[in-house]
Amino acid sequence: MFRKVLVANRGEIALRVLRACKELGIRTVAVYSTADADSLPVRLADESVCIGPPASRLSYLNVPNIIGAALKTGADAIHPGYGFLSEDPYFAEICADNGITFVGPPPEVMEHLGDKSTARKLMQDAGLPLLPGTVSPIVSAEEALSLADEIGYPVVLKASAGGGGRGITVVQRREDLPEAVRATRANAQALFKDAAVYLEKYLTGARHIEVQVMADNYGGVVHLGERDCSVQRRKQKLIEESPSPVVDADLRRRIGQAAVDGARFVGYRGAGTMEFLLDGDGRFWFMEMNARIQVEHPVTEMVTGVDLVREQLRVAAGEPMSLSQDAIELRGHAIECRVNAENAGAGFAPTPGKLDRFDTPGGPWVRLDTHCLAGSRVPPYYDSLIAKLIVWGPDRDAALDRMARALDEFHIEGRGVHTTIELHRRVLEHPDFRAGNVTTQFLDQYLSTNGTPP
Amino acid sequence: MFRKVLVANRGEIALRVLRACKELGIRTVAVYSTADADSLPVRLADESVCIGPPASRLSYLNVPNIIGAALKTGADAIHPGYGFLSEDPYFAEICADNGITFVGPPPEVMEHLGDKSTARKLMQDAGLPLLPGTVSPIVSAEEALSLADEIGYPVVLKASAGGGGRGITVVQRREDLPEAVRATRANAQALFKDAAVYLEKYLTGARHIEVQVMADNYGGVVHLGERDCSVQRRKQKLIEESPSPVVDADLRRRIGQAAVDGARFVGYRGAGTMEFLLDGDGRFWFMEMNARIQVEHPVTEMVTGVDLVREQLRVAAGEPMSLSQDAIELRGHAIECRVNAENAGAGFAPTPGKLDRFDTPGGPWVRLDTHCLAGSRVPPYYDSLIAKLIVWGPDRDAALDRMARALDEFHIEGRGVHTTIELHRRVLEHPDFRAGNVTTQFLDQYLSTNGTPP
Repeated sequence: MFRKVLVANRGEIALRVLRACKELGIRTVAVYSTADADSLPVRLADESVCIGPPASRLSYLNVPNIIGAALKTGADAIHPGYGFLSEDPYFAEICADNGITFVGPPPEVMEHLGDKSTARKLMQDAGLPLLPGTVSPIVSAEEALSLADEIGYPVVLKASAGGGGRGITVVQRREDLPEAVRATRANAQALFKDAAVYLEKYLTGARHIEVQVMADNYGGVVHLGERDCSVQRRKQKLIEESPSPVVDADLRRRIGQAAVDGARFVGYRGAGTMEFLLDGDGRFWFMEMNARIQVEHPVTEMVTGVDLVREQLRVAAGEPMSLSQDAIELRGHAIECRVNAENAGAGFAPTPGKLDRFDTPGGPWVRLDTHCLAGSRVPPYYDSLIAKLIVWGPDRDAALDRMARALDEFHIEGRGVHTTIELHRRVLEHPDFRAGNVTTQFLDQYLSTNGTPP
Repeated sequence: MFRKVLVANRGEIALRVLRACKELGIRTVAVYSTADADSLPVRLADESVCIGPPASRLSYLNVPNIIGAALKTGADAIHPGYGFLSEDPYFAEICADNGITFVGPPPEVMEHLGDKSTARKLMQDAGLPLLPGTVSPIVSAEEALSLADEIGYPVVLKASAGGGGRGITVVQRREDLPEAVRATRANAQALFKDAAVYLEKYLTGARHIEVQVMADNYGGVVHLGERDCSVQRRKQKLIEESPSPVVDADLRRRIGQAAVDGARFVGYRGAGTMEFLLDGDGRFWFMEMNARIQVEHPVTEMVTGVDLVREQLRVAAGEPMSLSQDAIELRGHAIECRVNAENAGAGFAPTPGKLDRFDTPGGPWVRLDTHCLAGSRVPPYYDSLIAKLIVWGPDRDAALDRMARALDEFHIEGRGVHTTIELHRRVLEHPDFRAGNVTTQFLDQYLSTNGTPP
């Protein structure tokens, strides 16, 4: 096992990784921007190194400074968390060049999966079901029009280099397609420095179902059941649960096997997530594979009892997984609410600021993954996630009741600070959500019908 | 189900019960002494009523005031927690007389179990194994000497009305017995207003193993596995775990069946605990049955996934249990450390005071049951328990590593306040404890050999 791990991230995921390391007896190094100097990960790590000013590109994306910190402290591995450098194959290569283990899949696998049209091609070859569309980037409006005529509207344009809901345009009508191609390519170039865009059928009335996989260096590939992440605002997940209320044992076996087949085909290593769309008839299609630990990983942990970060570290250190497919069993139901410092009533605009009050929920089967305390500052430079509230219950109803209780105990106040807590409360009370009957359009429709909570 | 439940307790267990009620949609009433006016249970309850000044006999044991609070607020049930009135059959009767459901077993069952020599007699009739000794109180030194000669020294004298480790004298030598009988009877009279004392064989080198049972009004009686509570200071539990490192599936089935048989024989209802001693040869003997939810119930919850307080409320409301023996399965391993405001270096003397710093541990599979926050005052009037730190892991080693990590994150400071955190750290590092190789004498021996932590 590693002697010392540097965590190249911030916030709750940095804390999550530090804790897993400590439980494995690994020494820890936190890196931080000047905006995070007083943060909980910095306080809890054995050592910490400042890697630059607040702006991400100067600190959490600053490869030379992070590698320098690892070399200076003698870290033998870097865990990248999610976001920032977590899916950057060049960073993984530079780690290797410096004799540091990158906790993640091999760089070439990351590169293939990072290009969404390459990933589509690979998964098609692996035998996974794909929505009709292109497997290579489209180059002209004419090509897009011809393909869209074939598969029918609506269609969706996606940046090949995108992911996580960014760089996506849904096109309902033929006359809007040429301009949408131009705009999406320009947007992709601006966001990802890569104008490549692909087109596929846009499915309405579908659910977002993703499968957690784990693979080691000895041919072991397992899945750990699915997560249902259908409650999204603007294609960003807000509530996740496991198992999905609409996935039965047979579908779980089939979609799980598809995820394992895909992961095995691309030579995956470590923790990864295969994202699918599931339609009302129980058919599923591959969307993309995320080559990192995900924000919503705790719901899988709560139902399987498997510590996914610990397994990541084991696999990266060259140990065999401690998992076998037969021994993985889902018990009960887990739900996660992402508590963001955002104003839902102002288009989910981030509301950074000082958290004067931060009263946290507790009690049995309530897990709060957060780096915040009363008095913490939410800096304006990074994403707006301030806490993940996760609950477990023996069944979905019990978990929903527990989540409602926990949300009632969660009080955050600060000048100018809004949170998504009230929105979560309302979604939990909505009969469609309670019945497990929502699609990826649910939240946007709800908000346009009911307005936003205060 | 009940409409409104009054919680006749304070501290972490009051909070625990309030949370269970809220998740069931039951309105809640907290009662409090003037010393607890600002406490978390009072803040989180829907309503609260002051029932008297700090001294327990004037508030948490003040039956007229508690009944009055229930009648005034229209509560249809009272949950007594543990300690205070939780095992008082007269209180349960008064509740019934006032049309209020007492969440616990029937008063006559409580009365039988509360008298430890009666309980011994009943369990003998139920076919449970008992240590050699008396089943009726001893009345003279001669009777005691004659019996002790028969069964051999050491023997132990226990107050019939005692329990929880109070009113107990171990006698190693024949010449000490007459005086021990006199002193234990006097002590029993002073502590419990009842001089009755019984005698049994004192087992050295044994473990404290207890079995959680749950029984409903429809003939359902199940057990939820065992807890190992061998780490005790002066017969008070300090660390508890489930499962026991020395109980295998066969022994679990046998001791579990004994517990179920005993509970069924006495007509038990609700949550109860059957306490046993287990010797090095795998033989077990009934000690006593506790007719309440216990401090250490969370370790059972963590491995079974069963919310014991929720089940208590269901059973008390006349609903059938949601449990069946076949469906109860232990997953992984859970450990609880009791964090008390005590000075281990001064004979575990309580150290009340203000908690200026109260940094709590978090992260996956860490549960902290506490009513304290930074700034809370630990009053001098009640027991010294300020937090229960519970962790779960897939196996005992993982749980121990997690507990060590969580203890490292737990920082409590206050003028004059000591805690048992450092003692827990040391016990966790002890090779005998790590190997699961401890008896009820372990901690006292450890302390006399190693001294107490600072």
